[in-house]
Amino acid sequence: MEVGFLGLGIMGKAMAINLLRSGFKVTVWNRTLSKCDDLAELGASIGTTPSAVIKKCKYTIAMLSDPEAALSVVFDKDGVLEQISNGKGYIDMSTVDDETSTKIFMAISKKGASFLEAPVSGSKKPAENGQLVILAAGDQELYNEMVPAFDVLGKKSFFLGEVGNGAKMKLVVNMIMGSMMHAFSEGLVLAGESGLDQQTLLDVLDLGAIANPMFRMKGPAMIQQSYPPAFPLKHQQKDMRLALALSDEIHVPMPVAAAANETFKKARRLDMGDLDFSAVHKAINQ
Amino acid sequence: MEVGFLGLGIMGKAMAINLLRSGFKVTVWNRTLSKCDDLAELGASIGTTPSAVIKKCKYTIAMLSDPEAALSVVFDKDGVLEQISNGKGYIDMSTVDDETSTKIFMAISKKGASFLEAPVSGSKKPAENGQLVILAAGDQELYNEMVPAFDVLGKKSFFLGEVGNGAKMKLVVNMIMGSMMHAFSEGLVLAGESGLDQQTLLDVLDLGAIANPMFRMKGPAMIQQSYPPAFPLKHQQKDMRLALALSDEIHVPMPVAAAANETFKKARRLDMGDLDFSAVHKAINQ
Amino acid sequence: MEVGFLGLGIMGKAMAINLLRSGFKVTVWNRTLSKCDDLAELGASIGTTPSAVIKKCKYTIAMLSDPEAALSVVFDKDGVLEQISNGKGYIDMSTVDDETSTKIFMAISKKGASFLEAPVSGSKKPAENGQLVILAAGDQELYNEMVPAFDVLGKKSFFLGEVGNGAKMKLVVNMIMGSMMHAFSEGLVLAGESGLDQQTLLDVLDLGAIANPMFRMKGPAMIQQSYPPAFPLKHQQKDMRLALALSDEIHVPMPVAAAANETFKKARRLDMGDLDFSAVHKAINQ
Amino acid sequence: MEVGFLGLGIMGKAMAINLLRSGFKVTVWNRTLSKCDDLAELGASIGTTPSAVIKKCKYTIAMLSDPEAALSVVFDKDGVLEQISNGKGYIDMSTVDDETSTKIFMAISKKGASFLEAPVSGSKKPAENGQLVILAAGDQELYNEMVPAFDVLGKKSFFLGEVGNGAKMKLVVNMIMGSMMHAFSEGLVLAGESGLDQQTLLDVLDLGAIANPMFRMKGPAMIQQSYPPAFPLKHQQKDMRLALALSDEIHVPMPVAAAANETFKKARRLDMGDLDFSAVHKAINQ
Repeated sequence: MEVGFLGLGIMGKAMAINLLRSGFKVTVWNRTLSKCDDLAELGASIGTTPSAVIKKCKYTIAMLSDPEAALSVVFDKDGVLEQISNGKGYIDMSTVDDETSTKIFMAISKKGASFLEAPVSGSKKPAENGQLVILAAGDQELYNEMVPAFDVLGKKSFFLGEVGNGAKMKLVVNMIMGSMMHAFSEGLVLAGESGLDQQTLLDVLDLGAIANPMFRMKGPAMIQQSYPPAFPLKHQQKDMRLALALSDEIHVPMPVAAAANETFKKARRLDMGDLDFSAVHKAINQ
Repeated sequence: MEVGFLGLGIMGKAMAINLLRSGFKVTVWNRTLSKCDDLAELGASIGTTPSAVIKKCKYTIAMLSDPEAALSVVFDKDGVLEQISNGKGYIDMSTVDDETSTKIFMAISKKGASFLEAPVSGSKKPAENGQLVILAAGDQELYNEMVPAFDVLGKKSFFLGEVGNGAKMKLVVNMIMGSMMHAFSEGLVLAGESGLDQQTLLDVLDLGAIANPMFRMKGPAMIQQSYPPAFPLKHQQKDMRLALALSDEIHVPMPVAAAANETFKKARRLDMGDLDFSAVHKAINQ
Repeated sequence: MEVGFLGLGIMGKAMAINLLRSGFKVTVWNRTLSKCDDLAELGASIGTTPSAVIKKCKYTIAMLSDPEAALSVVFDKDGVLEQISNGKGYIDMSTVDDETSTKIFMAISKKGASFLEAPVSGSKKPAENGQLVILAAGDQELYNEMVPAFDVLGKKSFFLGEVGNGAKMKLVVNMIMGSMMHAFSEGLVLAGESGLDQQTLLDVLDLGAIANPMFRMKGPAMIQQSYPPAFPLKHQQKDMRLALALSDEIHVPMPVAAAANETFKKARRLDMGDLDFSAVHKAINQ
Repeated sequence: MEVGFLGLGIMGKAMAINLLRSGFKVTVWNRTLSKCDDLAELGASIGTTPSAVIKKCKYTIAMLSDPEAALSVVFDKDGVLEQISNGKGYIDMSTVDDETSTKIFMAISKKGASFLEAPVSGSKKPAENGQLVILAAGDQELYNEMVPAFDVLGKKSFFLGEVGNGAKMKLVVNMIMGSMMHAFSEGLVLAGESGLDQQTLLDVLDLGAIANPMFRMKGPAMIQQSYPPAFPLKHQQKDMRLALALSDEIHVPMPVAAAANETFKKARRLDMGDLDFSAVHKAINQ
């Protein structure tokens, strides 16, 4: 199976390598073209523009850093739109907002081509190990055709229905995660201030019904008041805001998420936006 | 090793059986004495009063249903205090509040005996399988002597320092659990109302960094709006209240726990106190 | 002084009458032209289109029902833009959002004319009695020229600086009001449920440091669980949302407003959106 | 009419003077007896102990600084209990908790005497001007007999029913006040950070439906970040805690009070407990 691949950042490069290693023929493009060299050594072809990749391949996957990049690759000169057409499929795996995703979807559809938004859950390590979770939404036929690629890239993929549902599902998950991190931080501070050993709290939690990888991975550093950025607090806060905005539209009360969001805002006020989102612990603890 | 065992409710009976099966000599007592028969068949001796058990055994474990029962067994006629003395140890594994625990501790100490509070995390199943988590606090020497018994009863035991720390540790864990359950419920309602499949949300959560046994076990029933009581909501609310009271004394801000508690209160107002604590989902959803 | 006046709803009609009675020459327009008749009897001239009014008058005040009406009067055929020009002033006293206000401001400026946004605080009664509070922002010279008219319409007018500040000031005030109403409602329910007489609570409040017209006016009806719509709950909730969105942009934590907003959302979920915003009491009380 | 008066602190002295000036015969006592001299000059008799005052007077009013002083005056040697008896009345106007009030009530009742708790709303100024608000509860006959004195001491007195209701009413009022102060503080910070003039916000508020003496009196200092203690933040926080505890018992959800309380706790954590309760503004603003 032949696929195009646009965007060779940390995530995209790891994903493209996995496709190559699993026997896919891959044509890659990256804004800084020299980044394609490593892939070429592993057998990839190189496309000099997004439109060149689209022209060559029936299916093209994009993994860009943000909404601006995702839009630029599609709408700018030499972009996706110049060559996309009936019979081709475009799969955007970048994490973008609902609006960006819909804008790209509309433009691709107008050209008669098929579209999937397919944001992923998981960062560098899962990308390298083909252990991503893929939240796809849009054209179901295209989803079915992409399953072999998704099986290489992730441990599991979901088809969630209409475009926008992938982004929404990510918001719901990240909202729960933000509130949990806040509750966990409250627990750590309460334990510490009431004379309990915080490491023991981590051990007790890890043996019970709410044991989870996040507490396990982040807890020890948090006790040391260390918050090396994996998922920046400002992004977590943005996701809380967007989830709350979604809940506001449809009148779903979310008092815990709302309370958590206010501390994330406070943390940004205290210049912790670029720390890991676990730094909400620091804002509570100060 | 010989131990006394006071209280053969669901938890106590399973625990006493495990001790017998592992070769401990056990003398049991229960308020309704007939409940001792099954244990006698497995080789247990029977004590007709708490004081008789204490007199016979160097170590006595109690597993009573609530603070009233825990106090009654110690202070009433034919109770623990009548025979406890220097050289003996009393281990109360009931879940009681800090104050009750301290009252029992003071009385036992006055008699020259040793005391451990040792509440457990885990319910019927873990009790049967010897998979409890034991949160012990009080006399460290007594703890060391009890480790062989704790190894039979639980997958892990902790010594947490002075009397009261066992109860506090349980509060911290349950507070985090209550807030998590609230956040999870918000997520389920948000997903449902915004057109996402709730079962898919469960599947996505279970593959990610916040996957945990509680979401896995409770989620499917919650989607069905079914909340069969395992841990009653009114007890969860009480633990939220006590954790917040503790945080109030020592000035630890816990806005998420506070917000969650208000919904648990609302749920009690709506007569959901005897449902499972996952019924907070119902209060949000109505 | 001669002014144009666009929009003769409940508010606009009362305001135009006050101007006429104070000796202003007024040319009125309303979408349903027949509504101009009462004003004509009091001495007003009638303009058949917004552009006709603008052409005739150096200053034109608009008091429209919502952002759509405010935009339509300016941008549609026979609208304000067709005749507005250098030397003329346009004063929009409608309550609109920041974005709408800015859009109108830009279009008016492009034509070389001056602009003020001037939303008011106060409803029908204060409009009739010339007791509005006017929150003006935009062109300071135009503000100075309009002071004689503002003195007729309101008990006080403020010049708040750049366009957008009028809308923001209203948001801040309404946010405080929404949180206060929520706190007041909590107090009423707490008093009632703990056996205190609610009317007595009103009397006590009215004698103390937090006595205010809102508690005085709304309290007695709230005790009767009556919420006749003066300021609809859905509008209050929208203002809470917008104030929270503003605070989110600039990282100001507002945990009380956030908590209040969640109950307002809940109230809308329970179909109370068209009741008075004091119905948040009903949502707490149920 | 003759009354005894125990306690000549800032409040008590002002109140006793008012009684004297209105023609009451007053016998005063104070722990530091020299403080009685000023009153003697105005015509008061002096009692050397609380019991001496009780013996002499049919009615005795107490105005002590805190629960400890209120209990000591009643229960200690030479205290109220030694002389109180059938036919006499004891009126405790100190601000104490429900439990303290009930303890005193029980002891007084046992002696056959009548009791009123009658905490006041208002501080030094209103005490001097006879403008207190009196929240009486207990023996209704005694209340009726005391009305002439209450009319001198306050602008209004209420009879609230059984002992405990006076304390509860104060809690409800102070809870609303604390939440309002929090909402007001959020508004001040939001205005400041979004480029609005904070003094103008005060002016606008003071012209509208939520205008109240507290905003008017505290606002200007708060803008200057000055919080001279009138009602210490730690006392406000304690009242929030007690009001929340009351609501918890009877399952009344109070999410706004709960959110406000967390910031008051935070402020205490940041060592602002001895500042005025308006310093919650500082905690939000930092």
